[in-house]
Amino acid sequence: MIMRALIISLLSVGTIAAPPVMAAAADEPIQPIEAAKPKNENMVELGKMLFFDPRLSKSGFISCNSCHNLSMGGSDNLPSSIGHKWHQGPINSPTVLNSSMNLAQFWDGRAKTLKDQAGGPIANPGEMAFSHELAVGVLQSIPQYRNRFKEVFGSDKIDIGMVTDAIAAFEETLVTPDSRFDKWLKGDKAAINQTEREGYNLFKDAGCTGCHNGAAVGGASFQKMGVMEPYKTKSKAEGRFAITGKDADRMMFKVPTLRNIELTYPYFHDGAAASLEDAVNTMGRLQLGRNFTKDENAKIVAFLKTLTGKQPQFLIPILPPSTKETPKPKPFDD
Amino acid sequence: MIMRALIISLLSVGTIAAPPVMAAAADEPIQPIEAAKPKNENMVELGKMLFFDPRLSKSGFISCNSCHNLSMGGSDNLPSSIGHKWHQGPINSPTVLNSSMNLAQFWDGRAKTLKDQAGGPIANPGEMAFSHELAVGVLQSIPQYRNRFKEVFGSDKIDIGMVTDAIAAFEETLVTPDSRFDKWLKGDKAAINQTEREGYNLFKDAGCTGCHNGAAVGGASFQKMGVMEPYKTKSKAEGRFAITGKDADRMMFKVPTLRNIELTYPYFHDGAAASLEDAVNTMGRLQLGRNFTKDENAKIVAFLKTLTGKQPQFLIPILPPSTKETPKPKPFDD
Ligand code: HEC
Ligand code: HEC
Ligand code: HEC
Ligand code: HEC
Ligand SMILES: [Ca+2]
Ligand SMILES: [Ca+2]
Repeated sequence: MIMRALIISLLSVGTIAAPPVMAAAADEPIQPIEAAKPKNENMVELGKMLFFDPRLSKSGFISCNSCHNLSMGGSDNLPSSIGHKWHQGPINSPTVLNSSMNLAQFWDGRAKTLKDQAGGPIANPGEMAFSHELAVGVLQSIPQYRNRFKEVFGSDKIDIGMVTDAIAAFEETLVTPDSRFDKWLKGDKAAINQTEREGYNLFKDAGCTGCHNGAAVGGASFQKMGVMEPYKTKSKAEGRFAITGKDADRMMFKVPTLRNIELTYPYFHDGAAASLEDAVNTMGRLQLGRNFTKDENAKIVAFLKTLTGKQPQFLIPILPPSTKETPKPKPFDD
Repeated sequence: MIMRALIISLLSVGTIAAPPVMAAAADEPIQPIEAAKPKNENMVELGKMLFFDPRLSKSGFISCNSCHNLSMGGSDNLPSSIGHKWHQGPINSPTVLNSSMNLAQFWDGRAKTLKDQAGGPIANPGEMAFSHELAVGVLQSIPQYRNRFKEVFGSDKIDIGMVTDAIAAFEETLVTPDSRFDKWLKGDKAAINQTEREGYNLFKDAGCTGCHNGAAVGGASFQKMGVMEPYKTKSKAEGRFAITGKDADRMMFKVPTLRNIELTYPYFHDGAAASLEDAVNTMGRLQLGRNFTKDENAKIVAFLKTLTGKQPQFLIPILPPSTKETPKPKPFDD
C-alpha cells in the first residue's frame, strides 16, 4: 500500500527517468522500520514507570534508565556500566532501542525474550542488587502501583511476571523509525547525500551486510568477533561459549543492531572502540580482512550516521510515593 | 481577575450563604502558587538538557536529575545522597520543586540564587566531581550544544555563567500549582475534606505557620532546629553557623518548603525522619513543646498531603551525542 502510494506520488510529480527506487529498496539487504503500535497503552505506561523507578534496586538509586538512558540512545555511553555501589560491570551496555528486533537478548543471547531479560538486572548483584521478592514487595506496598497492576493485569497481587511483562511492553515501543536512511529506502532520494550513498554501497560491497542486515541492521545472528584475525581484548567475555560450552562458540556474539549507532558509543562488547571510525576500521580488518582508506572509512561512518532514527518522545513518568509499609532502600549496607 | 471570576461563578450558581471564602483565603498565612511563565523557552529547554546530562559529571553517570529526580518530587528519597564513586553525602537532598521561592539555596542558605547554586554540585568532589572548565569543555565539543547556546546567548563560546543561567531558568519552571490545598484557598470548598481542614486548623493553631508560611509554606526564613529541646542527630551539619561562625547561628537551617512534602521523604537535613508522621511529631515536640495525639498527628499529616501539586510534565530531553573531541568520562579513575 505504502509502496503503491509512493510510486503514484513519484509519478504524479512527473519525475523523469526516476530510478526504480522502490524496487531497489525491496532488493536492499536492509529494510525500513515503522513506529511501534502498542497493544496495551496502560501496560506500556506502567512499564515506563517501572523502567524509570530506582526503587527496583537495593540502593533506591539505580533504574533501568540509569544504564539504558533514553535521553542518550538507550545506553550509558560508558565502556562498561556502573552498577550497585559503583561496581564496574564486565561488559558494555547495549541499547534498548529496537531491542525487540533482536533474535535474543544480551551479547551472548542468553535471554530469549525481553520479558526473560528484564528480570535479570534487578537481581544481579553488580547491577541493581535486589531480589524479585523485594522488588515486588516495594511495588505491592504502594497503592497507586497496586491500582495500575489491577487495571492492567486484573489483579493487584503483583508478581515478577507482571513486572517483566510490563517492562517488556514498554521496551517494545522503543522503536526508532524515520531515520534518513529509512526515508531513502522508502524512495526519498534526497534523504541521504552522495557521500552517505557511497558509504552505503561500500558497506554492501565490502560485505558488512553479510552480518549487519535486515530491519535492525543486525540483531539477527550470532557471529564470531575476529573472523580473519583474533580480537585482542582485556575483557574475559567469551560470548556464546559461556552458554553452550562448545569451542566453536568462543567469541561468538550477537551482531549488534547498527540503528542509532551514532548515539551508542563506545563500541563492541568491551566498549574498547571509542569512535565509529575505530569500530569501522576494526570491523574491516578483523571481519573482512580489509584495510579501509581514510576516505572509505569516512564514507561508511557517514552512512552509519544516517541510521539514527526518531528517538522515543514521551513525558517523564511521575512515580507514586512510597508508603510507611515500603521497605527502605539500602544504599550503603553490605 | 481570577478572584472576581470565581466569585461571580459562585454567585451565578446561586450558592446560598456562601462563606466569604476568598476573603478568608486572603487572610490565610499560606498563599496559592501559579504555574511559571517561562521568559525564554529556548533557555528553559537548554537548561532541561543540562539538568539531565550526566556528562556534566566526571563519571558521565550522574546528572542533577540523579539526586533531584523529577519523577520523584525532585529529590532522591534517600537519607543522604549517593555521589561520585558512591560517595555518601553529608546531608539530605532537598527538592528542586519550587526552589525558586526560597530566600536562599541549600539548607544553610550559602547560595543566594539558583544560578549561584547550580555551579556547586558540578565541581563538588562528592557529587559530580568535575570542574567547570571540564564541564564547559564537554559542552563546547558538541555542535548541537554550541548551536543552542548560540541561539540562547548569542555566542557559542560557552562559559559556566551561561550553563548556570540555563539550569536556573529551567529550575524556575519547576513550580507545582493546583494542589488541592491551593484549590481550597482559591475557593473550592470541596477540594479538601473535613479531616484535612481540621489538620490545617491545627497546623495554624499549634504555631507551625510561624515558620512554615507564605506561598512556599516555608523557604522564607532560617530557624533553629530544636527550639524547645535540642535536636539529637549523628549529622555534623550545624546550619548557618558554618557560614557566619556566630554561635547564635548554630543549628539554624532554612525552613524547608512543605509543598509536595508527601513526595520528598525522608525528612530533615539528616534525613532521619522516615515518615511524615515522625517529622510532624518531632516538629511538635522540638519546635513547639507540644505532644500531638495520634489523631492530631494524623490530621496534620492529612493536611500536609493536600500540598502535593501538579508535577512538572515534560518530554524527556534527547541529548546530542558526544564527538571525537569530547573528553571521555572517567568513572573509575582516581
Ligand atoms: C548497572 C547497569 C544496568 C542496569 C541497571 C540495567 N542494565 Fe540492561 N544491560 C546492561 C548491560 C551491561 C547489558 C549487557 C549484558 C550482557 O550482554 O551480558 C544489558 C543488557 C540489556 C538488554 C539486552 C539488549 C541486547 O541487545 O542484548 C536489555 C533489553 C536490557 N539490558 C534491559 C534492561 C532493563 C529492562 C533493566 C531494568 C530492569 C536494565 N536493563 C537494567 C546494563 C544494565
Ligand atoms: C562476520 C560478521 C560481521 C561482519 C562481516 C561485520 N560485522 Fe560488525 N559486528 C559483528 C559482531 C559480532 C559485532 C559485535 C562484536 C563485539 O562487540 O565483540 C559487530 C560490531 C560492529 C559495530 C559496533 C556495534 C556496537 O554497538 O558496539 C559496528 C559499528 C560494526 N560492527 C560495523 C561493521 C562494519 C562497518 C562492517 C563492515 C566493514 C562490519 N561491521 C562487518 C559482526 C560482523
Ligand atoms: C550527588 C547528589 C547531588 C547532585 C548530583 C546534585 N545535587 Fe543538588 N543538592 C544535593 C544535596 C545533598 C543538596 C543539599 C546540600 C546542602 O544544603 O548543603 C542539594 C541542594 C540543591 C539545591 C538547593 C535546594 C534548596 O532548597 O536549598 C538546588 C537548587 C540544587 N541542589 C540543584 C542542583 C542542580 C542544578 C544540580 C546539577 C548541576 C544538582 N543539584 C546536583 C544533592 C545533589
Ligand atoms: C521555629 C520554627 C519552626 C516551627 C514552629 C515548625 N517548624 Fe517545621 N521545620 C523548621 C525547620 C528549621 C526545619 C528543618 C529542620 C532540619 O531539617 O534540620 C523544619 C522541617 C519540617 C519538616 C521536614 C521538611 C523536610 O523537607 O525535611 C516538616 C514536615 C515540618 N517541618 C513540619 C512542621 C510542622 C507540622 C510544624 C508544627 C507542628 C512545624 N514544622 C513547626 C522550622 C519550624
Ligand atoms: Ca555501545
Ligand atoms: Ca527530604
